[in-house]
This record gives sequence, structure tokens and C-alpha cells, in this order.
Amino acid sequence: MTQQQAHGSIRPGGRTARTRTAVLDAALEKLGAGQYAELTVEGLAARAGVHPSTIRRRWGSVHGVVLDLFDHIAGEIRIPDTGSLREDLRRLAEGILTLYTSAQHRNTLFRMVAAATAHPEGERTVRDFFAARTRQVSGMVRHAAARGEIPPGTDVLAVVEAVSAPIYYRLLISRQPLEPGVARRTADATYHAARAGTFIRRRPAAAESSAGGARGRKTFR
Amino acid sequence: MTQQQAHGSIRPGGRTARTRTAVLDAALEKLGAGQYAELTVEGLAARAGVHPSTIRRRWGSVHGVVLDLFDHIAGEIRIPDTGSLREDLRRLAEGILTLYTSAQHRNTLFRMVAAATAHPEGERTVRDFFAARTRQVSGMVRHAAARGEIPPGTDVLAVVEAVSAPIYYRLLISRQPLEPGVARRTADATYHAARAGTFIRRRPAAAESSAGGARGRKTFR
Repeated sequence: MTQQQAHGSIRPGGRTARTRTAVLDAALEKLGAGQYAELTVEGLAARAGVHPSTIRRRWGSVHGVVLDLFDHIAGEIRIPDTGSLREDLRRLAEGILTLYTSAQHRNTLFRMVAAATAHPEGERTVRDFFAARTRQVSGMVRHAAARGEIPPGTDVLAVVEAVSAPIYYRLLISRQPLEPGVARRTADATYHAARAGTFIRRRPAAAESSAGGARGRKTFR
Repeated sequence: MTQQQAHGSIRPGGRTARTRTAVLDAALEKLGAGQYAELTVEGLAARAGVHPSTIRRRWGSVHGVVLDLFDHIAGEIRIPDTGSLREDLRRLAEGILTLYTSAQHRNTLFRMVAAATAHPEGERTVRDFFAARTRQVSGMVRHAAARGEIPPGTDVLAVVEAVSAPIYYRLLISRQPLEPGVARRTADATYHAARAGTFIRRRPAAAESSAGGARGRKTFR
């Protein structure tokens, strides 16, 4: 991947990748049309012009194909390792923001969110994908802790959440434009909070109650 | 509103509010079924058992009804003013988090996001709603600046975004549970970042380019 990748289709280089290209393109098309529920191995195979068994062998299931598709898209965002956490966070935030300046990628995100809210299988795919991405970013956080930039025990998930959430908030909730200043601001905010120890993982006791458990905690209605 | 409000229906007290109750309930029902596009003044009126002219007089349009519905739901979150920004932020985050421990409210959020991504009118409603909510929170931020807790010129929108985005990120993107610790963490992160001056409003020059303008800034692909 893929300097020459065009928005709107999947074009990894190399001849052996032709099947992957065709199958991911078929999945992207189905997703773009909001048809997550109708995704089947047979449908994808027919659209991509391959045998269903080829898809089953390579990806296992539709879940595997969609994960690979998301992974391919997310591959546009390099995980930086500059030796400075602040700089790493700025580049990561800028990478996410830049990805979604593409209308095609914004649309895929919207479809993905819709699939996750509407289908248990879609939810599993989205959750697995973001969990995998979070693991990929963990090196950045660990290295920063090793350099003494942030306290040991800083939670990777919390850092990833803090740095990327405002971008998704603009896209999905407040519907505000993705100004370039947003990336720098969210990165710097995350940096200051991380240095202050806000993201240190707490003992399980503190995280014991789940969302349901929080229901009784309305203290200021 | 409304100690006695039940999740799943709108029950503001008082006799004169009966029309509002019926109309907001009808809108909630339609939204819950994912039928934003089919919302009409006539349809709502029929469902609520009132004259279309009553709806037009009171809310102007479907847009006005849906805004009032969102406002009613968001009314469950009190805007705190404790004299401490850190505490205010914690309570605000806890209020948002607690709201979405209700499956009904989560579902309304999902429908709202879907409507905003699928219909220009839905997008306008959601954008207007969050803009209004942000204005409501502005006092909290201004008071904190007046007390010297955070620098003057701190941007309200950036603060609201920072404190609430991680909660929406969990709900819509990473699909992680809303552990109570999340509210405290996101509030404290926002507090540290605000004190460090991260959210000071920049000169227009910095925010000049829009999302489209960011497209040329892919420097690390």
C-alpha cells in the first residue's frame, strides 16, 4: 500500500493481490450502499468474480472480509514513532483527520457506524477493528512511558480515545467541519492530560461497575 | 420535567403540556423506528391526535419538533455550576454518560446519527441541537475563566468537544462499555488541557482552511 491508491476503489499493487482487490472492492460497494445485512460470502464472490471457497479460505467469513477492508482503509494512517509523544500524537490525529477529508471514507465510516448499531455481527466487526488499531498504537504510548514523557501505567486505550474521539465527534455528533487546527488541539490536549497522569490505568475496583451499574449514580438531577 | 419521567415516553407534568407530550412521543416513536425521512407534520399530528396547524403554530415544522424532542432528552443533563471547573466537568461528563446508560436514549442517539448522515434536514437538526447545547455550557467555561482557573479566550466548543467526545466515541466507534471511570477521566483530561491553554481560541488564520482544505496536507503517507 499504496501511493497510487485512488479513493473509491481498492488497488493494492501486485498481481497476486488481484483477488483481494476484487473482493474488498465488492465489500466496499455493498457497504457504501448501506447493505451490510445483505453481505454474504456468495454475494461477494459473485460480485468479485471468484469462487466462494476462495473467500472462505482466505478470510473465513464476511466478518474477515470487512475487517480486512477497514484495515486497508486505516492503513492510510501511519502510526508515527518520532521520539516525541506530542509529535506522534499530532501526526496520528492529522492522519485520522486527513483520512476523513475523503467523502468516500466518511461515507464508509457512516455505513460502518450504522452497521454496528443495527447488526450484532456489524458491531463485532467494528469493535474488533478498533481493538486491533488500538493495539497497533500501543508502541507509541509504551515508548513515551519508557522515555519518561508520561507516567508508567498509562492506558493505551484511553490515549487513543482522547486523541481521536473529538474528530469522530465532529463527524458524527456536532457535524462541524474538520479544520486542520482540530488535529493539533486534540493531540496537545491528550499530551497534557497524559503527562498529568490522567490516563493511568486504575485498579479494577474503580472500573468494577459497568454502564448498567452507573444508572443509580444520578446525583444531580 | 420530571422526576417521574419514564424512559420510553415523554411525560412533562401539567395539563397544558398534553399536546407537547403527545407530539414528542409521536416523534420519538417514528425516530425509534428509524423513520426520520417519513416524519411529516401531518403524520405526527395524526399519531398524536392533534391538528396539523397546532404543530405548525407551536413548532413551525418537523425540524422544530425534533429539536424540542432532543432538547427534552438532553434536559436530563443538568449544566452544573459548582464553583470548580474540574467538578463541573466531572458532573457534566457523568450526566452525559448516565443519560446513555438508558437503552432508549442510546437508540435515539443512534437514530439521530443515522438521520444526520442520511438526510440534510436531519443533519441541520442535529447540528442546531448541539450548537444550542454548547451555548448552554458556555457559562461554565466563562465562569472558570473569570475565576482564573483557565486562561481567558478558552473556546467553549473545544471544551465541550473534549469532555463529551470520548463518551460518544465509546458508544459509536469503539463500542466499549460506558464504565463510570470514563466520565472522571475525560473530565480530568479536559481540565488539564484547558489549564494548559490548549483550548484557547486561535486567530482565524489558523482555522482558515476547511476540511476540504486539509486534503493537501497529507505529509506522512
